[in-house]
Amino acid sequence: MKWVYIEDISDYKGQEVEIRGWVYNKRSSGKVRFLLIRDGTGILQGTIFSDEKDSLLFKRFDELTQESSIVVRGRVREDKRSPGGFELSIEDLEIIQIAEDYPITPKSHGVPFLMEHRHLWLRSQKQRAILQIRAELIRAIRDFFDNSGFRLMDTPILTPSACEGTTTLFETEYFDQKAYLSQSGQLYNEATAMAFGKVYCFGPTFRAEKSKTRKHLIEFWMVEPEVAFAALEDITELAEDTIVYIVKRILEKNKKELEVLERDIKPLEKVKKPFPRKKYDEILKMIQEKGSKMEWGDDFGSPDETLISEIFDTPVCITHFPAKIKAFYMEPDPERPDLVLGVDVQASEGYGELIGGGQRIHDLDLLEKRIKKHNLPREAFEWYLDLRKFGSVPHSGFGLGVERMLGWICKIKHIRESIPFPRLLYKIYP
Amino acid sequence: MKWVYIEDISDYKGQEVEIRGWVYNKRSSGKVRFLLIRDGTGILQGTIFSDEKDSLLFKRFDELTQESSIVVRGRVREDKRSPGGFELSIEDLEIIQIAEDYPITPKSHGVPFLMEHRHLWLRSQKQRAILQIRAELIRAIRDFFDNSGFRLMDTPILTPSACEGTTTLFETEYFDQKAYLSQSGQLYNEATAMAFGKVYCFGPTFRAEKSKTRKHLIEFWMVEPEVAFAALEDITELAEDTIVYIVKRILEKNKKELEVLERDIKPLEKVKKPFPRKKYDEILKMIQEKGSKMEWGDDFGSPDETLISEIFDTPVCITHFPAKIKAFYMEPDPERPDLVLGVDVQASEGYGELIGGGQRIHDLDLLEKRIKKHNLPREAFEWYLDLRKFGSVPHSGFGLGVERMLGWICKIKHIRESIPFPRLLYKIYP
Repeated sequence: MKWVYIEDISDYKGQEVEIRGWVYNKRSSGKVRFLLIRDGTGILQGTIFSDEKDSLLFKRFDELTQESSIVVRGRVREDKRSPGGFELSIEDLEIIQIAEDYPITPKSHGVPFLMEHRHLWLRSQKQRAILQIRAELIRAIRDFFDNSGFRLMDTPILTPSACEGTTTLFETEYFDQKAYLSQSGQLYNEATAMAFGKVYCFGPTFRAEKSKTRKHLIEFWMVEPEVAFAALEDITELAEDTIVYIVKRILEKNKKELEVLERDIKPLEKVKKPFPRKKYDEILKMIQEKGSKMEWGDDFGSPDETLISEIFDTPVCITHFPAKIKAFYMEPDPERPDLVLGVDVQASEGYGELIGGGQRIHDLDLLEKRIKKHNLPREAFEWYLDLRKFGSVPHSGFGLGVERMLGWICKIKHIRESIPFPRLLYKIYP
Repeated sequence: MKWVYIEDISDYKGQEVEIRGWVYNKRSSGKVRFLLIRDGTGILQGTIFSDEKDSLLFKRFDELTQESSIVVRGRVREDKRSPGGFELSIEDLEIIQIAEDYPITPKSHGVPFLMEHRHLWLRSQKQRAILQIRAELIRAIRDFFDNSGFRLMDTPILTPSACEGTTTLFETEYFDQKAYLSQSGQLYNEATAMAFGKVYCFGPTFRAEKSKTRKHLIEFWMVEPEVAFAALEDITELAEDTIVYIVKRILEKNKKELEVLERDIKPLEKVKKPFPRKKYDEILKMIQEKGSKMEWGDDFGSPDETLISEIFDTPVCITHFPAKIKAFYMEPDPERPDLVLGVDVQASEGYGELIGGGQRIHDLDLLEKRIKKHNLPREAFEWYLDLRKFGSVPHSGFGLGVERMLGWICKIKHIRESIPFPRLLYKIYP
């Protein structure tokens, strides 16, 4: 008999099939036993019918506990009352293993307990919905860049130097040297962009930050495009296009999962080009008028991000930041050298920064001065300076964090649910 | 005027366009100047024609050096004699930067010098061809699994314990604990497979091996599928399908790049299902007959891999290995408990192991014994043991290394050219 997956069940109407999976739930009603089976791709209701109370199938059914592993065989029947529209008339039930005392029961558990059992918690409907959307979101990102002429160029994780300061770096021995886990592939992207024109990297990044917020992870995935000859305006448009593409794709492909999460999709349907574009100074004034205590030269804090999302009901592009709160490589605003040509995209609904990027310094002298001013070790940046010696061109890029984006799309309270095995302050198990 | 990329030039026949790029080469012939421009997507010949020897365009042309950055404007002309079939009649030439003393000249350089200048070496034709194929290969892998019902489930890089021994692990401080860089996502895959049925992870992995071979990198990318309810036979077939799909895709999409690399594609065209399938014992006998000194219980060394590829002109699946040379989690052969149900796929042409995998132990008692026998810290594996308590099922998976696969497809001598910024023994710059 053919082993099929529940997500494909509608192709097998009237046929006999085999389903391999786990017991999600069960109940009895007179001469019928109902078994909810999950196989990782969906949930299917199986029914066992018998006139004899002590039939073999009933006996096996009685043994079953939550998460027991089973193989069932039977005929697929269309049934409009069933969730999914199909049922299985079970004719054979094989028990692989009876699970005893499965720790996650239908009653509610505290988050610390669930996080300790993350390897099992993943089986629950809500977690599955989030991570299904995650898989589609990542695919959408790759499709977007692959189909727009970008070349995927993986950048290294083990790096000899820090991109943005050294206090939040994980350090390791690299044979006779020190190495650090990458916080961003950007500097390397700048090299590959000069070879390939338009590139992106997409991998895990690491920040050893001693902060506990609902918006931060120690290990997270980031996509970073970089474009030779692109200026701030070009990269701002690319940032918009990226977000619009992702949101549209999830709305198309993950309706079911968004329903499981009870996500109100109206705010997502509003995500259309162009986003409002405001300079840092303008946004500052707007949120100060709404009561923010933030002053010029501060970075936006979480309460400020909430205020911004009270003003705009879509993502908003913020540009022209004070140089002192941004990285050493950012191109100064030619009209106001105390500002840089950076762009951040703030999510709606208070979910904070989705994208950070901008135009990079392409002038050799200026970059040398900045490296000195930031006390960065020049020898580690020789290759980076080379990019300004041999055919330097204006160029721009940005970084988009997968988990922040997913947290917003799913409207989950804490970003820790947006990755299969989150790494949090002091937390690395399982 | 519209900025276009060279790869799209055929769409602009007869039109005026702008190309932004770098000087690849130049030459003069009477009243004509020829400029080879690269923009990261291709190379285009531009021509400048003038009756006056000291015209402004000729003066600018004379200034140009290798890798100088420029913007040119002009009309696209079809010309069958040109490489690519099109030329640009340059009407305007803007110099962004004159590159002085570009270190990589058309004369040949030693590999150590090129590796020190990897950030620039990437611009050369051969390196670009390899990395273009890399990008397509990665896309092929993702498409294959995404389109076969697998869910991408990223596994963590920072892990509290070792998967396969501790001597080759990079260690780092994780706040108040120790953490190690992942060598494989497999153990975590086993958890997500029980939640999603069919999963894969795809990310960088790390081995702090003090060995210098042409087949090893310290940091490399690996895709690892894992399937609940799959046995050795199923996963062997999946391994074949994966390799066949990738090779077919590269042959379709990267003809041009394979030509640049002067790759004889006949051996790749032979990659068809099914591959020869042999047990370890059979292969051992075959290579011993050809002079291998290998004994039962040894793992295949590089010379043995060469012998294997003299016997088979396609990849070959090798199964049923001695338990003692394989990892603790491998399912024993029920007929011969000194063997395990593992499968490796060896490349043709002596390129060694492309895939390693097999069936995992799903019996709780047996797994507990193995963890003890291998002196692994039980507390770190509690969650992994949970997978055998709560609905345990037979399951299988494998790992495929991107750089090994790419090295074979491109038939390059050393794997270090198969990743933008290779990490090698003692070598972490740039």
